Amino acid sequence: MTFTLPTTKMANAIRALAMDAVQKANSGHPGAPMGMADIAVALWSNHYSHNPANPKWINRDRFVLSNGHGSMLHYALLHLTGYDLSMDEIRNFRQMHSKTPGHPEVDITPGIETTTGPLGQGITNAVGMALAEKLLAAEFNRPNFNVVDHHTYVFLGDGCLMEGISHEACSLAGTLRLPKLIAFYDDNGISIDGHVEGWFQDDTPKRFEAYGWNVVRAIDGHDVNAVDAAIKQAKASDKPTLICCKTVIGKGSPNMAGTHNVHGAALGDKEIAATRAAIGWGYAPFEVPADVYAAWDAKAKGAAQESAWNTLQQAYAAQYPELASELTRRMSGELPANLEQTVAAYIATCVEKKETIATRKASQNAIQALAPVLPEFLGGSADLTGSNLTNWKECVAVRADQWGNHINYGVREFGMSAIMNGIALHGGHIPFGATFLTFSDYSRNALRMAALMKLRSIFVFTHDSIGLGEDGPTHQSVEHVSSLRLIPNLDNWRPCDTVESAVAWEQAVKRHNGPTTLIFSRQNLPFQERSAEQIANIKRGGYVLRDAPNAQVILIATGSEIELAVKSADELAQHGMAVRIVSMPSTDVFDRQDAAYKAAVLTKGVPRVAIEAGVTDFWHKYVGLEGAVIGIDTFGESAPAGVLFKHFGFTVENVVAAAKNVVQSAQA
Amino acid sequence: MTFTLPTTKMANAIRALAMDAVQKANSGHPGAPMGMADIAVALWSNHYSHNPANPKWINRDRFVLSNGHGSMLHYALLHLTGYDLSMDEIRNFRQMHSKTPGHPEVDITPGIETTTGPLGQGITNAVGMALAEKLLAAEFNRPNFNVVDHHTYVFLGDGCLMEGISHEACSLAGTLRLPKLIAFYDDNGISIDGHVEGWFQDDTPKRFEAYGWNVVRAIDGHDVNAVDAAIKQAKASDKPTLICCKTVIGKGSPNMAGTHNVHGAALGDKEIAATRAAIGWGYAPFEVPADVYAAWDAKAKGAAQESAWNTLQQAYAAQYPELASELTRRMSGELPANLEQTVAAYIATCVEKKETIATRKASQNAIQALAPVLPEFLGGSADLTGSNLTNWKECVAVRADQWGNHINYGVREFGMSAIMNGIALHGGHIPFGATFLTFSDYSRNALRMAALMKLRSIFVFTHDSIGLGEDGPTHQSVEHVSSLRLIPNLDNWRPCDTVESAVAWEQAVKRHNGPTTLIFSRQNLPFQERSAEQIANIKRGGYVLRDAPNAQVILIATGSEIELAVKSADELAQHGMAVRIVSMPSTDVFDRQDAAYKAAVLTKGVPRVAIEAGVTDFWHKYVGLEGAVIGIDTFGESAPAGVLFKHFGFTVENVVAAAKNVVQSAQA
Repeated sequence: MTFTLPTTKMANAIRALAMDAVQKANSGHPGAPMGMADIAVALWSNHYSHNPANPKWINRDRFVLSNGHGSMLHYALLHLTGYDLSMDEIRNFRQMHSKTPGHPEVDITPGIETTTGPLGQGITNAVGMALAEKLLAAEFNRPNFNVVDHHTYVFLGDGCLMEGISHEACSLAGTLRLPKLIAFYDDNGISIDGHVEGWFQDDTPKRFEAYGWNVVRAIDGHDVNAVDAAIKQAKASDKPTLICCKTVIGKGSPNMAGTHNVHGAALGDKEIAATRAAIGWGYAPFEVPADVYAAWDAKAKGAAQESAWNTLQQAYAAQYPELASELTRRMSGELPANLEQTVAAYIATCVEKKETIATRKASQNAIQALAPVLPEFLGGSADLTGSNLTNWKECVAVRADQWGNHINYGVREFGMSAIMNGIALHGGHIPFGATFLTFSDYSRNALRMAALMKLRSIFVFTHDSIGLGEDGPTHQSVEHVSSLRLIPNLDNWRPCDTVESAVAWEQAVKRHNGPTTLIFSRQNLPFQERSAEQIANIKRGGYVLRDAPNAQVILIATGSEIELAVKSADELAQHGMAVRIVSMPSTDVFDRQDAAYKAAVLTKGVPRVAIEAGVTDFWHKYVGLEGAVIGIDTFGESAPAGVLFKHFGFTVENVVAAAKNVVQSAQA
Repeated sequence: MTFTLPTTKMANAIRALAMDAVQKANSGHPGAPMGMADIAVALWSNHYSHNPANPKWINRDRFVLSNGHGSMLHYALLHLTGYDLSMDEIRNFRQMHSKTPGHPEVDITPGIETTTGPLGQGITNAVGMALAEKLLAAEFNRPNFNVVDHHTYVFLGDGCLMEGISHEACSLAGTLRLPKLIAFYDDNGISIDGHVEGWFQDDTPKRFEAYGWNVVRAIDGHDVNAVDAAIKQAKASDKPTLICCKTVIGKGSPNMAGTHNVHGAALGDKEIAATRAAIGWGYAPFEVPADVYAAWDAKAKGAAQESAWNTLQQAYAAQYPELASELTRRMSGELPANLEQTVAAYIATCVEKKETIATRKASQNAIQALAPVLPEFLGGSADLTGSNLTNWKECVAVRADQWGNHINYGVREFGMSAIMNGIALHGGHIPFGATFLTFSDYSRNALRMAALMKLRSIFVFTHDSIGLGEDGPTHQSVEHVSSLRLIPNLDNWRPCDTVESAVAWEQAVKRHNGPTTLIFSRQNLPFQERSAEQIANIKRGGYVLRDAPNAQVILIATGSEIELAVKSADELAQHGMAVRIVSMPSTDVFDRQDAAYKAAVLTKGVPRVAIEAGVTDFWHKYVGLEGAVIGIDTFGESAPAGVLFKHFGFTVENVVAAAKNVVQSAQA
């Protein structure tokens, strides 16, 4: 490597910006940026291929700061290399509506590839990005045309390595052999509670070798040439690489470096002055001299890199026009033009067939119908493929040495979900992955992160209630459907039959600004008859499935409980009661409808009974204090499903009694 | 080892019972019991110290089936060795209210030490048990009196090893050096999706060596003598041990062994007949010959083992009467007699001091007050001790070579929580552990398991809302408080000041039949004045904090929003409105109060406004369709707390407007 400046001076610019920004905000984490600054010099100056003028260039390298609390490191790098991130933004670190929030957030700051902070998920997103790259390369590259060809670089710390998800992600990355994934371990021996040896004594290099990684041991993380050499070695490996860098947290601070005091708080004016003196940084806060800017500036090099790629891409487009336009479409996230008619035709088939099947099977049928027109589908399951039914006839298993479009994620629910997020962030695929609904608990924060990042990740959860039967309470969801509804920007669908399942899949695929959960039954559910208008209304999340003139009561139900609502309505009709049934497969989507539509579905003043095989609290939002909820507020039991539904009161008798009761109360 | 029977015949009894019970239920998992039967012979016949007549003997070895789907293995062992688990119960496998549910459940079946099924949590519970044993031994044993001295044995499979939590738990077990923890890896190469090599190629022995475990490699899991020798080697080690056993899943089945087909479904009559023939088991379903029962019978040996311990314990009690009675108290879970007066005195101090402090600090003060009378306190934090404030002045850090009562769990939220559950299951401690509320997501299924198992685990969650400020949306809870309230049998407290924080701690400690979350603010909250009656009512979960004759509106709030409710009530009073404020620190506890009390607090017909810095859906349960909820249904932002509260509408102005609005609507 040749530099126009001493690399230490380049690194010190990061150190100064990090400590000054944290000091001004009086909040933040200077330790990691100061400790990893030299590693950043090695990577960003000589290896990281990116174009500050176009952060969305599709063949850029991806860079993930898995230890996201060190956000000032990334902001400093983006600012110094020439991204649209002004010094005013750096000064506004951690302030309202700045482009420099406390942790890196995708879509807020140009050049940020994923939102990090919840430890372990950044490296896992990166596994997803590297996997997406490998699969797209296998699908789209042609001899002499490596149009998809980039690395994914990750910075991570002890925290990420302690988190369980790092095991799931790195184990799978080793098995699937992702050579373009290169991670840098900031081995500074410090976590928030102090020196890690009291609670973390892993031989991390050995652990990663056990996963099948290439490990570069014991690099001096403050020796730019050593890090550079390690990166070169990593690039030559046919495995993912972990570069273990010994560093000093808060490097440069004469009195606080190497201690946890520098991890998560401002250094204070006095120590900042001492640090300036110690590292020879004679500039004012937020002042960067021209020579440092010049040394860091990546605009010309980045433009040249993208330009070279554009030339390659144009030649590729000339030789493989269809592939090229498909790659462009796929990376843009646009859906194929023939999706609408495919869905319409498939729904027509469902209407014709009137099948009574489990909605997990209905889901598989929908996947089967959509897959031919959605080559971007990248399915998978956390070792429950045959139960979740996320595979389809023509799908190919992803293996280390085999392109595929269905991933056996292994028993790694959290890893799967955060890998899916990485795949969605990379672009080029629509990832979906499945487990039992109860084990959405294991992956819950990744669902939240998908919602926060507005990603098109589709989480398929089957075996959605006590209806799974004998596996018992550990496997039976009770609180989960309601609990997922509470996550902002997460759309949740619990369909009742083949048609609703098809619409749910359609809506999940079409959703451009957030993730969706698709929640399916283990057991068979009957087909429901609907008019064309009713079918069209499914996508509004809730609609009138059955009606009666001057309905005296509204039964609201979802999924498997629609059948019970229908039977109860029939029974109530025998008693002379006019009943409306509202099917509410997605409360999230229903809530977004206009007031007039909502009022037409849930007519004001008509008493309501909600029925769902889950906790009751949530449903008071729709039935109020006076309505009734037929649900289950305890854990389930191990027994056949039919026995359980009866035991927990999901009977026509109970619904009829509840309906009569709310009607009487309303009249009293 | 000497046996009265060929060990294969003993093992075949397990195989036959497993396949017959699964067949009769037409549901269940025969593969693991058949594959691990020989390992079970080696462990249970010669090493496992237990007394079938007294499953609660405090010095018994603990046995955990982490691959809980293999429940029939454990049920067969309990039945054969002489526990109160009849053949009728085995016949009733997976049926309603049997003692043989689909997955092992503690408190349902004598001899089951923990509820398993959610993979990876069993081994993690076992780490907690082994840690509890080590700490109690250090505290209570005296020269020649090892009154606490037992092993913790675990069976686990590929699924547990793929789960991230296995990394967290086993890494910490290695660091804390738990030599009496001995795990058996059922290395059969099969998971539900098939042969694991496509998604799981870890060098598991190497991985565990990297954790500092003793690893016994490549044992033939069908060679009882080899397994026995491995156990002896494990017992001699000063580290936790993983015994890697090569096995054949469904061993004995001539046509299905070694395939995933035998994992999770009945073999079918034909294959069962073929298996009977192949293994030479000429007995009818559910028939066990007398010689097999005799060979397995552990009643006499178990009685002798407990009796020997009783003799030791009596001598110990003679020499160390106070220690002995304290150990008895601790293991029984009874609280010390002076707890009540300690709490009362501490609350009196709070009332006197009227401190405005963060409730996380109020929590630490409560811990400080309670710790001297609760030596069973075993605190901890997932690497956020200085933020969560779960330590206290005299606490001692748990280290590999040091007794302690505060655990630095490292950045391992899920591991911490399931280890706490193991500590609670073992007995002798009241575990509490902390992280930021948002990262309750990481541990969510362990909270659920604590609730299902009715354990006294106390989960402390600080930084409970947008009030944490600059760390931004990744760290700001929005949906979490409501979402935790949906988990059955989990009590959740979000106190508003020092007094409510003290009562919340008291209630958590006193709760014998379930876990509690204690949810605290990062930021300062003002002290609230209360009468003695109001203080007494805090423990009812919700109570009238301020009242006015003929109140026209009820403001319901929790935690940090009580301050806003009080200011708003003052403002409304200026406008001539009579306002009641209900403080609702625990909706779970409030819901359990009698109807008269609840009606007195939330008077029917009085319009209501709920205020909580979280999602709004949940609160319609208390305010109905006509009431208002001041909350936040989007993710937060990165900015100082004060800016955020204003930005998201937590202002007196908004509350006043909402209150006027609901009153007007009610009058209209």
